[in-house]
Amino acid sequence: MLPLLPAIYVAWADGELSAGEMRSLCAHVEAIEGIDVECREALGSWLDADSPPRPGELSELLAAIRGLATGLDHPERMDLATLAAELVHTGRPGMPLRAPEARAIAELEAVLGIIGPEATVALLDLRRESTPPPRTPAFDPLVLGAYLDGSRAGVRNSVRRLLSQPRFGYPVDVARDDYRELVLVWTRELAERGIGSIGYPFEYGGEDSMGGFIAAFTVLAHHDLSLLTKFGVQFGLFGGSLARLGTKRHHDAYLKAAGSGDLLGCFAMTETDHGSNVRDLETLAVYTSATDEFVITTPHDGARKDYIGNAAAHGRAAVVFARLVVANVDHGVHALFVPLRDTDGEELPGIRIEDCGPKIGLEGVDNGRIWFDGVRVPRAALLDRFASVDEDGEYSSGIPSADRRFFTTIGSLVGGRVSVGAASISVAKSALAIAVRYATRRRQFGPAGEPETLILDYAAHQRRLMPRLAATFAYHFAFERLIDDYVAGTVDQRALEAQAAGLKAYGSWHAIDTVQACREACGGAGYLAENRFGALRADADVFTTYEGDNTVLAQLVSKSLLSDYKLQFADMNLLGTIRFLAGKTLAGLREVAPALGGADEEHLRDRRWHLELFKWRSEHQVAALAARTKKRLDSGMDSAGAFVAVQDHVLACARAHVESLVLERFAAAIELNPDPDSQRALNLLCDLFVLTRIEHDRGWFLEHGRISAAASKAIRKLAIEISAEVRHDARGLVDAFLIPDAVLAAPIGR
Amino acid sequence: MLPLLPAIYVAWADGELSAGEMRSLCAHVEAIEGIDVECREALGSWLDADSPPRPGELSELLAAIRGLATGLDHPERMDLATLAAELVHTGRPGMPLRAPEARAIAELEAVLGIIGPEATVALLDLRRESTPPPRTPAFDPLVLGAYLDGSRAGVRNSVRRLLSQPRFGYPVDVARDDYRELVLVWTRELAERGIGSIGYPFEYGGEDSMGGFIAAFTVLAHHDLSLLTKFGVQFGLFGGSLARLGTKRHHDAYLKAAGSGDLLGCFAMTETDHGSNVRDLETLAVYTSATDEFVITTPHDGARKDYIGNAAAHGRAAVVFARLVVANVDHGVHALFVPLRDTDGEELPGIRIEDCGPKIGLEGVDNGRIWFDGVRVPRAALLDRFASVDEDGEYSSGIPSADRRFFTTIGSLVGGRVSVGAASISVAKSALAIAVRYATRRRQFGPAGEPETLILDYAAHQRRLMPRLAATFAYHFAFERLIDDYVAGTVDQRALEAQAAGLKAYGSWHAIDTVQACREACGGAGYLAENRFGALRADADVFTTYEGDNTVLAQLVSKSLLSDYKLQFADMNLLGTIRFLAGKTLAGLREVAPALGGADEEHLRDRRWHLELFKWRSEHQVAALAARTKKRLDSGMDSAGAFVAVQDHVLACARAHVESLVLERFAAAIELNPDPDSQRALNLLCDLFVLTRIEHDRGWFLEHGRISAAASKAIRKLAIEISAEVRHDARGLVDAFLIPDAVLAAPIGR
Repeated sequence: MLPLLPAIYVAWADGELSAGEMRSLCAHVEAIEGIDVECREALGSWLDADSPPRPGELSELLAAIRGLATGLDHPERMDLATLAAELVHTGRPGMPLRAPEARAIAELEAVLGIIGPEATVALLDLRRESTPPPRTPAFDPLVLGAYLDGSRAGVRNSVRRLLSQPRFGYPVDVARDDYRELVLVWTRELAERGIGSIGYPFEYGGEDSMGGFIAAFTVLAHHDLSLLTKFGVQFGLFGGSLARLGTKRHHDAYLKAAGSGDLLGCFAMTETDHGSNVRDLETLAVYTSATDEFVITTPHDGARKDYIGNAAAHGRAAVVFARLVVANVDHGVHALFVPLRDTDGEELPGIRIEDCGPKIGLEGVDNGRIWFDGVRVPRAALLDRFASVDEDGEYSSGIPSADRRFFTTIGSLVGGRVSVGAASISVAKSALAIAVRYATRRRQFGPAGEPETLILDYAAHQRRLMPRLAATFAYHFAFERLIDDYVAGTVDQRALEAQAAGLKAYGSWHAIDTVQACREACGGAGYLAENRFGALRADADVFTTYEGDNTVLAQLVSKSLLSDYKLQFADMNLLGTIRFLAGKTLAGLREVAPALGGADEEHLRDRRWHLELFKWRSEHQVAALAARTKKRLDSGMDSAGAFVAVQDHVLACARAHVESLVLERFAAAIELNPDPDSQRALNLLCDLFVLTRIEHDRGWFLEHGRISAAASKAIRKLAIEISAEVRHDARGLVDAFLIPDAVLAAPIGR
Repeated sequence: MLPLLPAIYVAWADGELSAGEMRSLCAHVEAIEGIDVECREALGSWLDADSPPRPGELSELLAAIRGLATGLDHPERMDLATLAAELVHTGRPGMPLRAPEARAIAELEAVLGIIGPEATVALLDLRRESTPPPRTPAFDPLVLGAYLDGSRAGVRNSVRRLLSQPRFGYPVDVARDDYRELVLVWTRELAERGIGSIGYPFEYGGEDSMGGFIAAFTVLAHHDLSLLTKFGVQFGLFGGSLARLGTKRHHDAYLKAAGSGDLLGCFAMTETDHGSNVRDLETLAVYTSATDEFVITTPHDGARKDYIGNAAAHGRAAVVFARLVVANVDHGVHALFVPLRDTDGEELPGIRIEDCGPKIGLEGVDNGRIWFDGVRVPRAALLDRFASVDEDGEYSSGIPSADRRFFTTIGSLVGGRVSVGAASISVAKSALAIAVRYATRRRQFGPAGEPETLILDYAAHQRRLMPRLAATFAYHFAFERLIDDYVAGTVDQRALEAQAAGLKAYGSWHAIDTVQACREACGGAGYLAENRFGALRADADVFTTYEGDNTVLAQLVSKSLLSDYKLQFADMNLLGTIRFLAGKTLAGLREVAPALGGADEEHLRDRRWHLELFKWRSEHQVAALAARTKKRLDSGMDSAGAFVAVQDHVLACARAHVESLVLERFAAAIELNPDPDSQRALNLLCDLFVLTRIEHDRGWFLEHGRISAAASKAIRKLAIEISAEVRHDARGLVDAFLIPDAVLAAPIGR
């Protein structure tokens, strides 16, 4: 019976064996030839599912086996059958294991699902050779961090230092009103240190640096997001719209006070009934020549201003967007400077303000609703950069149509979208820094006889976190470039707006998806408020909505691409354009499609192929979208209807374009990196980013014959392998985000 | 010039035209043959991008056009060229539009991207025929609702009525301590009404109905989720583990008091260092024969009990999981009844409890940490259904090995997973009810001259909500069947555990994804706390973690499938099994693969094909996973290592299995529905569920040659079309969830 003992023990010790399996096992053992009756009965009693051995008997059996195994050479290399043979040898020197017994053991192993020396290791409580420790990253996180900061390192570092001061520590369990006051105190300190006005002209206390302002914003986005939002409302939206929509008299009167925090203000655009479609806002600003004033009125409850930051408590004035009516002509939406509260904080006559009440997050921001009941402001209150009313009550504008004026107005505020989009990537960085660091310390499960496995060593964990880390770097560089372009002002305005819309939409979706994945990756510890995922998640949630609903923004991207298309064929006649859109473009694209190539790693990691493939997908999607739209227009739909009918393609098209843009910018930034060590790490991330995105859209690539089924499988395999490789860099990569510990603040993220 | 006026107006009114485009337009106009010099100059000045017309001029131009167009027959059917011709005709009767002008107008339309009568409608401010109103659902929501409730309608309705009472109204801005007290008051009321003890035996005040208990739980899940969790901890985990792990003496002593809420208790399993891997818990319960007691000790800080509900404030006792050590032998994890606090709420000697502090959500639950320092409990405190220690200090158990005992213990608590999984589907229902109702009232954008479009009429909105609605119905029926099976006890225990694990994991992921999509679909209004997405999202977030981390649970599913596999080949020898796993199974599956079929709608909506396809994918994934695992085992990896290496496939395999299971149960429930009207609606949902899932995994189906590229595209198209069809049922479908208004409580969700 001796050689069967280990298998018998393992059979009972296995927690997953059912009674049926035990019976099957029993039948196997009983079928062994050449065992004497006594032995067979003993075996039968050991394996009787209805009368299992007592725990004590099992412990004794284990002790006996371990006793017999003492002194064996390298038992950790033996499978159960070998161990059995060795035990027989030890017990009866010179006696080989009999064939039927050997076969029975092999069969038992098959039933038990045991292969190799594993069961032996567990049985004898042996320590396996431990797995090699993770490699340290072959790059200097500080060098990479400096490259991420780029030319804006100075302002970033100074904001990092400031936010690391104890007075910027996060409150615990604070009541909403106290939280709002704290956020106000913080906001004032940022103002005092000149951070709020970095983007304003020198003559108004600023540094004339929008790049610096947005860079400061990206660092603030690692801190409390209510502060970020309040900061953005006060200095970006309120002060920024004064700067960009107003003229010198408004700048002289308000800009310095806005930047210093002495004049707190709101950006009163959104109305309850009009959030996305702000062109159709309903608040009225009617010019009255009798008093040379505008009279501002909320015509009905649905036209109240809603979700307005700084309104419920602190704002003393607002930039109010309203339909400007002069001599009974509605000139569309314009912005006016409107005082809301007196110096005591009391609402001025005609102004009614309500608190929006509790929100999902951003509870440190005092969002409110505003109604106007015949509020009078002087003619000079009109922010008149794009349109004005003269002393004779004559309306004039350099932009002839109301729609066009509106889009110009909105376009001049694109910095808000750039800022919020870039901030969302900071949020993703915070979440990843916490989750990656936790995963390099937290252990759970693992092979017997070893310390439990680090959770970052699990393939599933790597798959969850590493591609999101890669995408975060990709978006980082895409936003840095967007900021550069925005500041330089050299890019076509419409193209810049489309890029800002697309990057903000997909960047903020990426961010909230990443926070969620990171929270789950930290389990119960991730659910504690102190570890910050709750705040990151709840506060950043609305990034997908404010500064433009993401779904609406994605449509703007595609519309802009279609408009480019329209331009491209402007000198063909109408019928020619139809024919072209319906077939030739797609056919042409097929001709210039990137090589199908193989499923080999060299091809799959070829950056040129990546770039071509993404570009081709984007162009193909636009052409196909144009063709689909055209088909519907031809069948009699209006363009709005046609656009709704193809909306799914509109969104796919926008995503393809944004991913192509992001890849292009990521690849370009890697090329420019002077440090070969971090360049290698970034190239690995870029491979992972591309391959994960192809994998995600592999249905499309397969449908369109751009990758083979074999390549598709190879891409998944490679993405898994690269995730495992990036795992070794992960800690260094998140360190390169340079988030101060005091700002990240999560106990598990240190 | 007359015929060109409309196009000129549109060119300037179009908000999206750039200066470059204006110049291109200008060049077009100037190229028109046969225009006299004066006219050409006038035109040039109208289209000069550097000197645009004044707003007043543009308004006058518009007024002029509208004046000329008065009296035209059906101008809403004219494109710009036709309108121009008609204007010429009106101005100069009998004069046809000249060919060069007609061509110029056509070219202008091409540049402007205008096709059809749309521009004319906008230009003349005409009202188009309005789109037909949405159809009312062709089924009775109450009939469908009753079918969803099934045999458990009674208990569900009574809980609905109870929760609709004003005293169950949600608090606003409540401090955490007050919130906890309120939740306790609610919990006690549920106890008093016998809802907590429904699952307990009659002799202890219950109704011996686990089905009723879980049904009540699914309705509670529409209410405050802190209450749900407290309820689950008290009656399900604490009381349930006393019922299932204890014996008569424990039942007699505690069960009635647990059910009545007189004895509040905790389920103290998780430790800081061991959340998922609870088999390796470290709390010790050492038997001391001298006093016939167990001494319970927390050996180090990482072994403290963590995240324990009811611990921080209200629990007077706990079922504590600890390693049972008798006579120096560690028998693995066992459960003991341990008093925590005296009747004054003071911690008993040796017990230390800390509050876990603020959490992401569930702030009405008092989660805490517990340390034990030599806490003595009598021998009878051991919940001894599966193991006991007799008066001689002898340990005995009907289950011989520690691992197996542990899995049996855990397995007996599977009801918790069933409950939390089913509750997560209720959360998805709440979110969908709010978002769908809002989307049937909220309007934004739309064609000129009409009321703005209902947001549910946008394809993107339908694509966002309708497939999630379909999946919610699918999971609903899958869980109802799981509850039936759990209650009946006729399904093999291991299979039931695997189903519960899989449905809980993918069901709760579905739920939080759905809440997020619904929040975004409601924009800023969705971000207000009163509309409940914040609470739903933050509270339900941890459903992906508690009762088993979803990623770990998904692995359990696949492990269970592999174990079945192992059994299936138990009577082949080892080499045979290897060969089989390595190739034959996959080849065999290829032979029995469902027909590739066409891309036609009839085929794509064939339920039998759906079922076969999903089953085949699931079986293929298991076979492939087995083969992959085997390959790694053969190359010398141990099973834990091999399983980690193939973890990505492990998760894919689990998902395929769960989706197949869900589809099967959904289809079966539809078959049994006696009401043909709602059956039709459900069949539509089922089509949408299947097609969306295929679309999501179309990469895999394409790689494996199970659908053609043409079918893949057709599936996406059909999924979009069916989403548009389901849109008409949407309101009725969410009404069928029978969530009382008072419980849903979102102002936008009425």
